[in-house]
Amino acid sequence: MSPQRKLLLLGTFVHSKTQQDLDFLHKAAIAVDAHGKIAAIERDAHDSSEAKARLLAKLGWDEAAVDVTEAAEGQFFFPGFVGITTDTHIHASQYANAGVFGKSSLLEWLETYTFPLEASLKDLAKARRVYARCIRRTLSHGTTTAAYFATIDVAATNLLADLCLSMGQRAFVGRVCMDSPDMNPAYYRDASAGDSVEKTQQVIDHIRRIDPGFHVVSPILTPRFAPSCSAEAMSGLAELHRQTGLPIQTHVSENPGEIQLVAQLFPETTSYTDVYDKCGLLTPRTVLAHAVHISEEEADLIAHSKTKVSHCPCSNTCLTSGQARVRWMWDKGIDVGLGTDVSGGYSPSILEAARQAAMVSRHVAMAIEEEKEKERAKLTVEEVLYLATRGGARCVGLQDKVGGFEVGMEWDAQLVTLNEVDDDGEVHHEDEDDGHGFVDMFGWETWGDRVAKWLYNGDDRNTKRVWVKGRLVHRRT
Amino acid sequence: MSPQRKLLLLGTFVHSKTQQDLDFLHKAAIAVDAHGKIAAIERDAHDSSEAKARLLAKLGWDEAAVDVTEAAEGQFFFPGFVGITTDTHIHASQYANAGVFGKSSLLEWLETYTFPLEASLKDLAKARRVYARCIRRTLSHGTTTAAYFATIDVAATNLLADLCLSMGQRAFVGRVCMDSPDMNPAYYRDASAGDSVEKTQQVIDHIRRIDPGFHVVSPILTPRFAPSCSAEAMSGLAELHRQTGLPIQTHVSENPGEIQLVAQLFPETTSYTDVYDKCGLLTPRTVLAHAVHISEEEADLIAHSKTKVSHCPCSNTCLTSGQARVRWMWDKGIDVGLGTDVSGGYSPSILEAARQAAMVSRHVAMAIEEEKEKERAKLTVEEVLYLATRGGARCVGLQDKVGGFEVGMEWDAQLVTLNEVDDDGEVHHEDEDDGHGFVDMFGWETWGDRVAKWLYNGDDRNTKRVWVKGRLVHRRT
Repeated sequence: MSPQRKLLLLGTFVHSKTQQDLDFLHKAAIAVDAHGKIAAIERDAHDSSEAKARLLAKLGWDEAAVDVTEAAEGQFFFPGFVGITTDTHIHASQYANAGVFGKSSLLEWLETYTFPLEASLKDLAKARRVYARCIRRTLSHGTTTAAYFATIDVAATNLLADLCLSMGQRAFVGRVCMDSPDMNPAYYRDASAGDSVEKTQQVIDHIRRIDPGFHVVSPILTPRFAPSCSAEAMSGLAELHRQTGLPIQTHVSENPGEIQLVAQLFPETTSYTDVYDKCGLLTPRTVLAHAVHISEEEADLIAHSKTKVSHCPCSNTCLTSGQARVRWMWDKGIDVGLGTDVSGGYSPSILEAARQAAMVSRHVAMAIEEEKEKERAKLTVEEVLYLATRGGARCVGLQDKVGGFEVGMEWDAQLVTLNEVDDDGEVHHEDEDDGHGFVDMFGWETWGDRVAKWLYNGDDRNTKRVWVKGRLVHRRT
Repeated sequence: MSPQRKLLLLGTFVHSKTQQDLDFLHKAAIAVDAHGKIAAIERDAHDSSEAKARLLAKLGWDEAAVDVTEAAEGQFFFPGFVGITTDTHIHASQYANAGVFGKSSLLEWLETYTFPLEASLKDLAKARRVYARCIRRTLSHGTTTAAYFATIDVAATNLLADLCLSMGQRAFVGRVCMDSPDMNPAYYRDASAGDSVEKTQQVIDHIRRIDPGFHVVSPILTPRFAPSCSAEAMSGLAELHRQTGLPIQTHVSENPGEIQLVAQLFPETTSYTDVYDKCGLLTPRTVLAHAVHISEEEADLIAHSKTKVSHCPCSNTCLTSGQARVRWMWDKGIDVGLGTDVSGGYSPSILEAARQAAMVSRHVAMAIEEEKEKERAKLTVEEVLYLATRGGARCVGLQDKVGGFEVGMEWDAQLVTLNEVDDDGEVHHEDEDDGHGFVDMFGWETWGDRVAKWLYNGDDRNTKRVWVKGRLVHRRT
């Protein structure tokens, strides 16, 4: 990556300090170097110009060589969202179907909605149209890192990687592997286990050409899910992981019908998770999406292997899959992030996924009798925002680079604006009447209230700027 | 109301035919007379200009005297949303707290968040600011009829009625009655049962002055909920209902703690619903919000008395109240509509409430073992849109006036626009890049898919025009 102009960000910064707590930096400044890295942070200055002056002096930077962005009163900088299965799991190919799921459950939904659309994306003009829209939309919703399930088509998957790189979204791009002749339609499957591995290698080679250090775009090994794959294909991908260290993404235990099917297809295993374990796919670089119905033993296996889980609350509800128990997984020591799982879920927004994570945790709580456990099951505003940022970063192995604001981390961030309501109940903007969405501030809110209101009613209109690795990749006027 | 210019609407119209089915009118035209009533409907013309010509000829109207609005290709007209507790239950006074509920449950939440804010609205400048914003927001989200819980303050409640009338939102405005000295804070309660009735009468008198026929704004009798009220106050309001025929709104069976409390406070009754029955408050003009935990017997009592229920799925989840069972209530023959219950729920949007109704029905389904019943519990796109329109209209007794497009009904409607994605994955608008929200159409969707995508990803940006009784009350450029 060629060096960029240095950045200086001034104002209020909000990020997760711990799983339970947000850190609010007021009258602060963050300096970002020419490689997109956070070089220094100043906080608690008398005002932001003092913070700026301190930083410039400390770093010996010339203000003229620096682009300055100051958050206005009430605005704040927040880390970019990391869907692990940050949208580690957006199924880019299915973006076009968002909101179309009828009353179906998983297996019907694949047959009816998903496979036909995915297959059609071998038409590269169509793939460009859908993928470009998906990247544009997720960036505009503040998703700076996405892990994508593309399709089985190599050229279309390579195109997705090209588009992520040129549009500046940090991405893990996975060519979907599915070679089982019995479980996949004839028009949409890999010819053999060897074919799954070989075509995955072709995508890896392509991405290595366009982004040799995988600084922005990385391949990710992507067996669709156990029912679609032969044990041979999955073992082949595990071998590829051991050779390359590349991350892995797949699905686990999304719904009861699927779990029964896996038990029939792999009779020699003890559980769905065990299928992956036997194939060598449970690794600290593996993300399993859903994990709705995993048993105690499966959770222990996941925890022990340091495998990660992508919680997809919206999809799990839309498809009536079930309620994944985040608190319980956390208690087991499992790292959890958020996924949108479009089009199983309807929304491309990780903010919406965070909101849904809070809501689903309340449905989990409703089923618990014991008062203290009921209370614990509920996820707080702080906790779901952790899932959306640092939690996701841990899942894709980027916890030292993104998800928070610390010296040495990269500047993947969004600038958030809310409405200020005047005495007549009106909101004024330069441009148009609702340019800033409908999160209304009356002036008496605490900073905690502000963030809660953003979580619950915010949308892409509140995300005014988005940076990845210091590069401005989205801007809303 | 003074006569307005006549209207002619051209294009595609979508509304509920039955609880299960949407009706799509293409190349159609609707004529609206000077009183805001639908005078005639033409459908299935060769094109919309033919439909227009037919209508003008049939009615003998001169085109020069008519304002014509034509929906562009892909746009459609949809009935305005009727929150029964159309926002029959928006708690206008609590709008300012949207998204701020922490991990609290109902009773704490009232103490911590609700009563202090409500009490502060006796400051009329503050009330104007909050209420105007709330009306503006709900109109912009397509809510043409709202039933509001205001506060105990007569002047502030009258101000809310004034604002609804001047801003053109059809509304039921309720002064909140709460006289129990033990259950309400000293700083925020009615002095006595007589005071509750007397101050309600003052609001009725005010509304009768500003809108004598209650054509746009109507009073609604509003005992807050049983724990807040003496039996005497509730009986007094029931007597007022018998004298005036005015509608009634209150809450029932929102959460277990509340239900226990009611049992303690009213030991002579058999259930929460029975409290209202004994006081004479169960009537065909009564709307009970929530009804989450009602028993078979209570549901029968509600059905038998033709009392209505406002389903508030967002609030019920946010406050971990529980999952109301809409299919079960429908099976009992109970009319159900939707409420946002802001700020228990976070969103002022009935479209969001409809979405949440679909989601919550899936959580209800998850707890059901039997396959067929599990399947039945899920609400479809068509069914939740019915709840949002005709269902709500039935709850507030307006089923012959609003909620659908039929001759003799009034023109309460919204014009909906979605995005059309071009070959590069871009969306173009005259004004700004995301002026139409993020519901993306790729051109291959059926009309059913379009409506589903709107339901699941739509927001106020998709609502371009809103009319109440033929008057344009919101316009988005």
